Amino acid sequence: MPGKDRDPKIPFGKAVRFFRNAAGLSQERLASSARVHRTYIGDVERGTKNISLESMVRIAHALDVPLSRLIAEMEKSRS
Amino acid sequence: MPGKDRDPKIPFGKAVRFFRNAAGLSQERLASSARVHRTYIGDVERGTKNISLESMVRIAHALDVPLSRLIAEMEKSRS
Repeated sequence: MPGKDRDPKIPFGKAVRFFRNAAGLSQERLASSARVHRTYIGDVERGTKNISLESMVRIAHALDVPLSRLIAEMEKSRS
Repeated sequence: MPGKDRDPKIPFGKAVRFFRNAAGLSQERLASSARVHRTYIGDVERGTKNISLESMVRIAHALDVPLSRLIAEMEKSRS
């Protein structure tokens, strides 16, 4: 499948931004709700963080979407 | 939702084992195909690794399943 081996951090960051905007949350509000550092969400959205499963689960939870949906959104922009 | 904040590494590891068995692959074969260390898959399946997005994508690719499906399987055993 095309794009399967490309860096997933960029499309993952785009998916986080997509759902954060859909929820009408600022980066600061999302960070606080996900219990991560204030600047962390910006780094994730720019694709500069090699995010761990645990942080991904916390961010998805704070966005109130299943992580599988966040990943499916990431896969859409990778294919 | 129940279980949303529990450690996701254990159910993620179970999901990896589920799809690896379904594909009829040994841990060694999966490790080689995913370009990770031989012992890494065992650690992931036991839930002792805080796996990164990039490693998750490589393992899903080697299992020939979308990462979103692997995560959906993880979510099944967490809810």
